[in-house]
Amino acid sequence: MSRAIAVLGGTGPEGFGLALRWARAGEAVIIGSRDAQRAQQAAAKIKQRAGEQAQISGLENSAACAATDLIVLTIPFEGHAPLLKQVKAAIRAGSIVIDATVPLASSVGGRASRTLGVWQGSVAQQTAELVPKGVFVVAAFQNTSAEVLNGDSSVECDVIVCGDDPNANQIAHALAAKIPGVRAIDGGKLENARILEHITALLIGLNIRHKGHSGIRITGLPEAAYQSGR
Amino acid sequence: MSRAIAVLGGTGPEGFGLALRWARAGEAVIIGSRDAQRAQQAAAKIKQRAGEQAQISGLENSAACAATDLIVLTIPFEGHAPLLKQVKAAIRAGSIVIDATVPLASSVGGRASRTLGVWQGSVAQQTAELVPKGVFVVAAFQNTSAEVLNGDSSVECDVIVCGDDPNANQIAHALAAKIPGVRAIDGGKLENARILEHITALLIGLNIRHKGHSGIRITGLPEAAYQSGR
Repeated sequence: MSRAIAVLGGTGPEGFGLALRWARAGEAVIIGSRDAQRAQQAAAKIKQRAGEQAQISGLENSAACAATDLIVLTIPFEGHAPLLKQVKAAIRAGSIVIDATVPLASSVGGRASRTLGVWQGSVAQQTAELVPKGVFVVAAFQNTSAEVLNGDSSVECDVIVCGDDPNANQIAHALAAKIPGVRAIDGGKLENARILEHITALLIGLNIRHKGHSGIRITGLPEAAYQSGR
Repeated sequence: MSRAIAVLGGTGPEGFGLALRWARAGEAVIIGSRDAQRAQQAAAKIKQRAGEQAQISGLENSAACAATDLIVLTIPFEGHAPLLKQVKAAIRAGSIVIDATVPLASSVGGRASRTLGVWQGSVAQQTAELVPKGVFVVAAFQNTSAEVLNGDSSVECDVIVCGDDPNANQIAHALAAKIPGVRAIDGGKLENARILEHITALLIGLNIRHKGHSGIRITGLPEAAYQSGR
């Protein structure tokens, strides 16, 4: 990437795992958190694991948004809209926001193997409503296991990328392809994000039932479909 | 199986493909159709492809239900509830109904890459409301490509089985395992069928966009999870 990747919620397991993988791939990564000190602690841990050359820092969420124009959202659903409202003013026009958030029912005391209905159809579409005009939203990375990302092995999971702006989608494809084992697949418009979000609940249910760290692979598409999309 | 498998909608591509695969595996299969003659024609075609020893016949839908206690539903969503109401009296107590139906928006003139909302949560749960008491409903086979089933190659797709009765689920697992390449995975309760139904719409969208016949594989579960369930 020509720009740093701000991972909001990067102190949580999914964000931390993605940040670790991108830092290892040589990308500049900014961990965003409500608390700048916690962000810096997470960044230090990633530096320990990814090596001294890793370009990783930690900032408060708004400062992280202001520092780059490539933002990844990995926050629990209950904190999603409040966070976006808080950081909105700091998101630059032209930024790309990649949303990995899933509306798990655990956000309101339910089960993580169930989802909540989101009025707009998906969290990603809610995000598109909440970001400033001229910001591009892409849905991706909902289905990559946090546990697997936090390990050292290959990530046996395809990342389906849904979004309405081809250039922004292309960035998400490239980010996915930075993670060993991951294949990026163009999943069409942002509205399809709802299916990716539901799949996460299915995978969590499978993890609980079978004691694993599941992911998905899409079979049966021509080879070209598994490269970086449009 | 100790009993014949009635495939309602077996003249359509998904049902025909499943019937072909099960006939090849040595199972007794009854094609069900609104029109007994069309059912018999489909059965004759399967016999041509599966060989003279294939145990395959064709019956009108109600007669097919009356002839066995293992029923597979592979019908377009717009015909689903009307068919169940029509055959209800013919379904024996203790029967197992395996539902592969997906509420594609194409049922009402929309896109096959989108789903309709079903009040009960999923088509399979609607089925559970419509069948007689004492009939067990299982959701499975939504995600197996009709085109691939109708071919001769291995089916690179996992079948996730959702249902509330362990014995009925077990039958669906065994049926899945009869298809070369398919692995059956216990996906939990019938209510989870909604996610399987949504995945079909995602796969159809991928097929259109990338010109393929897609399926899914679940990665990251222990080996035991891929055998016949509970």
